[in-house]
Amino acid sequence: MDIFEKLAANRGPLGSHSHYAHGYFTFPKLEGEIAPRMKFRGKEVLTWSLNNYLGLANHPEVRKVDAEAAAQYGMAYPMGARIMSGNSNLHEQLEEQLAEFVQKPAGLLLNFGYQGVLSIIDSLCNRHDVIVYDAESHACIIDGLRLHQGKRYVYQHNDIESLEKQLQRATRLAAETGGGILVITEGVFGMSGNLGALREIVALKEKYQFRLFVDDAHGFGTMGKTGAGTGEHLGVQDGIDVYFSTFAKSMASIGAFVAGEEYVIDYLRYNMRSQIFAKSLPMPLVVGALKRLELLKTKPELKDKLWEIVNALQSGLREKGFNLGTTNSPVTPVLLAGQIPDATQLTLDLRENFNIFCSIVVYPVVPKDVIMLRLIPTAAHTLEDVKETIDAFEKIAAKLDKGLYSKPAVTA
Amino acid sequence: MDIFEKLAANRGPLGSHSHYAHGYFTFPKLEGEIAPRMKFRGKEVLTWSLNNYLGLANHPEVRKVDAEAAAQYGMAYPMGARIMSGNSNLHEQLEEQLAEFVQKPAGLLLNFGYQGVLSIIDSLCNRHDVIVYDAESHACIIDGLRLHQGKRYVYQHNDIESLEKQLQRATRLAAETGGGILVITEGVFGMSGNLGALREIVALKEKYQFRLFVDDAHGFGTMGKTGAGTGEHLGVQDGIDVYFSTFAKSMASIGAFVAGEEYVIDYLRYNMRSQIFAKSLPMPLVVGALKRLELLKTKPELKDKLWEIVNALQSGLREKGFNLGTTNSPVTPVLLAGQIPDATQLTLDLRENFNIFCSIVVYPVVPKDVIMLRLIPTAAHTLEDVKETIDAFEKIAAKLDKGLYSKPAVTA
Repeated sequence: MDIFEKLAANRGPLGSHSHYAHGYFTFPKLEGEIAPRMKFRGKEVLTWSLNNYLGLANHPEVRKVDAEAAAQYGMAYPMGARIMSGNSNLHEQLEEQLAEFVQKPAGLLLNFGYQGVLSIIDSLCNRHDVIVYDAESHACIIDGLRLHQGKRYVYQHNDIESLEKQLQRATRLAAETGGGILVITEGVFGMSGNLGALREIVALKEKYQFRLFVDDAHGFGTMGKTGAGTGEHLGVQDGIDVYFSTFAKSMASIGAFVAGEEYVIDYLRYNMRSQIFAKSLPMPLVVGALKRLELLKTKPELKDKLWEIVNALQSGLREKGFNLGTTNSPVTPVLLAGQIPDATQLTLDLRENFNIFCSIVVYPVVPKDVIMLRLIPTAAHTLEDVKETIDAFEKIAAKLDKGLYSKPAVTA
Repeated sequence: MDIFEKLAANRGPLGSHSHYAHGYFTFPKLEGEIAPRMKFRGKEVLTWSLNNYLGLANHPEVRKVDAEAAAQYGMAYPMGARIMSGNSNLHEQLEEQLAEFVQKPAGLLLNFGYQGVLSIIDSLCNRHDVIVYDAESHACIIDGLRLHQGKRYVYQHNDIESLEKQLQRATRLAAETGGGILVITEGVFGMSGNLGALREIVALKEKYQFRLFVDDAHGFGTMGKTGAGTGEHLGVQDGIDVYFSTFAKSMASIGAFVAGEEYVIDYLRYNMRSQIFAKSLPMPLVVGALKRLELLKTKPELKDKLWEIVNALQSGLREKGFNLGTTNSPVTPVLLAGQIPDATQLTLDLRENFNIFCSIVVYPVVPKDVIMLRLIPTAAHTLEDVKETIDAFEKIAAKLDKGLYSKPAVTA
């Protein structure tokens, strides 16, 4: 059989909707400066779909440094992998500062977060080792697990009883294989907004021998007293053995880093395949990250402003009776009862008639009868934006209740 | 056992040398503008280790556009994955132009090459499918294969008899599983510089049913009449079903693309995990890639200049009796007889006394008694650079022959 035959026959869970979704529900274009008000199909929309938590994407100091660094270095420098020819003092300076900020002895800069996570897992674990991981882990963690040649056990999302059961199995197996155990979870789960049960997981270290890897993509910069992440927020930063964050959220860029004990980071530096065999992070992104980190450290008012908006949005929505699930973070999911066709009409209405742009999440990410609207509040939003959004949500929820979105055409 | 215990005990094939290699042989810093003359530890060195084939890294038009695009957009825009909120007209324009340039109906821009290749393989193949691949495939291909749940067969590097044997096995197996066959190879192999046997592989399509995926990282921009790559050079571009190149070499940037039939690319657009679940390529890199592609298309003199340097370097070295292996591309490996300690002393001498910086490749990439010096000529080099280098190589080869590098200290 032609290996391509199946691609035409089954376009995949998202691809099967592309005939009507493309360019609108999928691959939409948000134009203009990154801000709460952007253009979508020529019209201004109030945007709640960008992980620009601290508003750094468009901060004047960030923009200035981004422009200057690109002018000074171009986007090509340095060339080659870090280990071959792509190293610089600034790369090292950034990783030292990141490590210090998250209260770890050493850090390693990564050229991209997704492949970084894959290779961290791949480097740390051999076929004798056992991985125990949260069922709702991000795709990059899952792909990392798929590279793992040893055994892996999944525990129910944030369910400590389930985790403990799997740790017992893992401990028995590791005793046989002579390997060790790595537990993997996230700081903030990007869909539900709830926090990884880090405190409870770290407490289990007294009963079981394992190391803990936390992907804190959504927690870095948003959680904890200093913004050092979910571990700091929960008072267990020391219990995280391998701390990871991307720059794609609070840092408003690309690239990522991992931090931990010096010998662990040294090992990763010399053994992560996606880093040894691929190009170093371009210098303007390194210089830009140094500036972003500086602002993150010196301007706590950005995080305060973020949380002011988060609290106003979440408490406002809850007061109106909305179900926000289990979020404890800025990620604000609004769970409504409805099917995919309702979701389509509702989103159309929200964008076209209420000028609100947010992400819409449907089956298979949430159950078949659930529509999830996912709002990402940022420090750049205003309380006016919050009010406008809560008002609009009240109206669309009422229409959904009345079954108005089950009909083909919608007018506001 | 503690999962970290083994990291301290065995630091990996490269890490085990880090105590003397770090900062010099590994993670060296090349400073200053990307050019044939850069600074290494404060001293000017003639550099042959950057994949800046066409000299675009520091081309004034590239530098201008890189600076302007960063000033206009900042490094944050757009945010989110392409499919969620990270799409733009320029992303689409770039992928159309790339596809057209490599003579394919459709193209897809990728946020990074390494994870791009992983997810291409992962998306195209299910567990019924069989992958047949070249033994010297790049690490990103190998990691992609490791995600594959079905069977894979490796053929000896560029050995068509071996490939045919594996195709026969694959055909029998695919008939049982109901799957298809994907053959994976490279256009230019980055270590040896020899070309994938694309003509012979494509000819096998008359006897066996398979699709061909070619990673042309080193061929894009350097090979073929128009620079469209190794398939064009060998007259079999049409036989390549999935064409991939990174931007990390000729394009002097990061990011990558894949091109092929429209339905295949559409499928990839909606199903590649590293693209759906990770951030879009930042706009300055997109705008920068558009400019690089324009120069690549409109300035054939860059490729001509590259080849003038390549030919002078390779024929000059061959005339002096050096063994360049099987290269048919700009990649210029110089194979010398020696052990790792010789390689260390020789490289020190080359860098400290002859002021020449190139990559050094030792066991396990090459056999234990081989030292490979890998030179990457570029359009930015001069014939003077070539002469200086050949002279230096003659001298170090003579010293190596005399066993001078087996002694601990070296002076020129």
